[in-house]
Amino acid sequence: MSDEIVLALTAGEPAGIGPELCLQLAAAQRDAGVVVIASQPLLEARAQLLGINVKLHLWQPGMMPKKGAGELSVLHVEGCASFQAGKLDVANSHYVLETLKVAANGCLAGDFDGMVTAPVHKGIINEAGIEFSGHTEFLQELCGVERVVMMLATEELRVALVTTHLPLKDVSAAVTPERITQVTRILNADLKKFFGIERPRILVTGLNPHAGEGGHLGREEIDVIEPALEKLRAEGMQLIGPLPADTLFTPHWLDDADAALAMYHDQGLPVLKFQGFGRAVNITLGLPIVRTSVDHGTALDLAGTGKADSGSLYTAIRVGGQMARSLKSANRKAPNKETSE
Amino acid sequence: MSDEIVLALTAGEPAGIGPELCLQLAAAQRDAGVVVIASQPLLEARAQLLGINVKLHLWQPGMMPKKGAGELSVLHVEGCASFQAGKLDVANSHYVLETLKVAANGCLAGDFDGMVTAPVHKGIINEAGIEFSGHTEFLQELCGVERVVMMLATEELRVALVTTHLPLKDVSAAVTPERITQVTRILNADLKKFFGIERPRILVTGLNPHAGEGGHLGREEIDVIEPALEKLRAEGMQLIGPLPADTLFTPHWLDDADAALAMYHDQGLPVLKFQGFGRAVNITLGLPIVRTSVDHGTALDLAGTGKADSGSLYTAIRVGGQMARSLKSANRKAPNKETSE
Repeated sequence: MSDEIVLALTAGEPAGIGPELCLQLAAAQRDAGVVVIASQPLLEARAQLLGINVKLHLWQPGMMPKKGAGELSVLHVEGCASFQAGKLDVANSHYVLETLKVAANGCLAGDFDGMVTAPVHKGIINEAGIEFSGHTEFLQELCGVERVVMMLATEELRVALVTTHLPLKDVSAAVTPERITQVTRILNADLKKFFGIERPRILVTGLNPHAGEGGHLGREEIDVIEPALEKLRAEGMQLIGPLPADTLFTPHWLDDADAALAMYHDQGLPVLKFQGFGRAVNITLGLPIVRTSVDHGTALDLAGTGKADSGSLYTAIRVGGQMARSLKSANRKAPNKETSE
Repeated sequence: MSDEIVLALTAGEPAGIGPELCLQLAAAQRDAGVVVIASQPLLEARAQLLGINVKLHLWQPGMMPKKGAGELSVLHVEGCASFQAGKLDVANSHYVLETLKVAANGCLAGDFDGMVTAPVHKGIINEAGIEFSGHTEFLQELCGVERVVMMLATEELRVALVTTHLPLKDVSAAVTPERITQVTRILNADLKKFFGIERPRILVTGLNPHAGEGGHLGREEIDVIEPALEKLRAEGMQLIGPLPADTLFTPHWLDDADAALAMYHDQGLPVLKFQGFGRAVNITLGLPIVRTSVDHGTALDLAGTGKADSGSLYTAIRVGGQMARSLKSANRKAPNKETSE
């Protein structure tokens, strides 16, 4: 097996900025070998629209992806019905999901070392009569795992979430000992596996303001979080908390930490996106494959203008490459142990 | 009336770092005249413990506070029973509250232009049999106002909260049209009055992740927040939102904004404290007086060591002084209008 990393990059929604972000890669240094999973005519049409000079090379399993200036390797996927920037077409929905299947199955088969996803449009896929709540859930089902963990990361900060896309009023009930335990185990194991951290130090928030202030502002810390963390500590994990969310994100705590685990979406992500604006990457942990993603949406209003910022995609590729290398290296050291966490 | 600003500074919990932070002021440039409201023997004892060379001058209404190096003006308050750093004493609780009353009543009487508070210890005051849930509520009652607003600020960012110290599971029910309306009106009026902003631009978060994503992740944005904002816009306010909390705190939105209004504590404060670590100030809006505070606690473990960082106190004094000047200037321009918002 080559030391070179090969990442599958799905171009996402054809009407969005995904295809042109993929094309912009051709002009840039790539930290890993990248194969764009997309309709070739779509890419050609978008390149022509934007005046991007790029030679597309059809890729097959086993080939090294092209990395030269102006070159891009492509795995063509059939079924893209229309190419218009900014204009959603319900007829493209099956094609979009097909690119995800091709990438994920290619990872499972060992053709790719990981996958990076450009944004899809949930609404138009659902309009096509396909139930779809996001990349993460789709890949979770495709890979057949019970629980995945959403983590956003920049060079300086990693924030994982116990709960993700829930109405705020449902968060307290969803923060159960079982969920905390599953999520924390996955986070701990994948920080080792994908990031090469021997014994991760994880900061954990409380659920309530001031982490409940000794029960005065809510009892979930005392009744749920603290007992769950105590059991996990007995397994050898280094877990600090539950800490008040508004003091956790300060140097006193962050300086020695490998990741923060927040109880819910808006407790952890505003600070992450503030800190790493335009350079944040969305990582799905708990899958048997490496998967990173941009942290932005389809930006239909920008599609076709060439103004979309590819910072997050570069970061997603760089981090995806690092994760894949870490996994390969761990597998070489202990070929039968990497999934034993 | 002099143009010089006179701020009352309450030294807070005697066992905490408050007294020594006040003493450290004597060595520093002060942006405004400061009168420390505290037990004089307590200040003398702490100065001696830390080897701080300071001359305390007893202050009376109408005097200009001392600002020279090594000088500090003090309004002595009786009743401090013990002075030991790090050791709480329930017998000091009445004294601590008395310093707050002296400062607030002095503001109401016009002897002071505003008040700045060092931290108190809620637990020990409650142990003394006095119901006390914080400075903010205490001053609200003393001043007889129905609603106050908590805002944290740094030089670069202001974040106000619709709800504050509530268990997370109670937040959704507390975000009512009435509360949003009251809080937003106070925020808008006080940004004008205390910060001289003619027509504030206020960013407002949603309650749910992605601001509810069109109702898919909760309906409070559609049913409660948006209608409340619409009515307030009809009063002439510039309100942008409800925005997803994790995209609000990015340059695209922040660059033109005067403040962000978050629906709850951990949605707004982690990013504020991350951004302005050690330089954040807590401001109570909606009071008839200027009130700022440090953003940290009593730090009993640091008290008496001289290691406490006075950055937040300096900021609180500077911001309190600016607010008082803005208020004075507004009163001069329109002496009968300043409370008509």
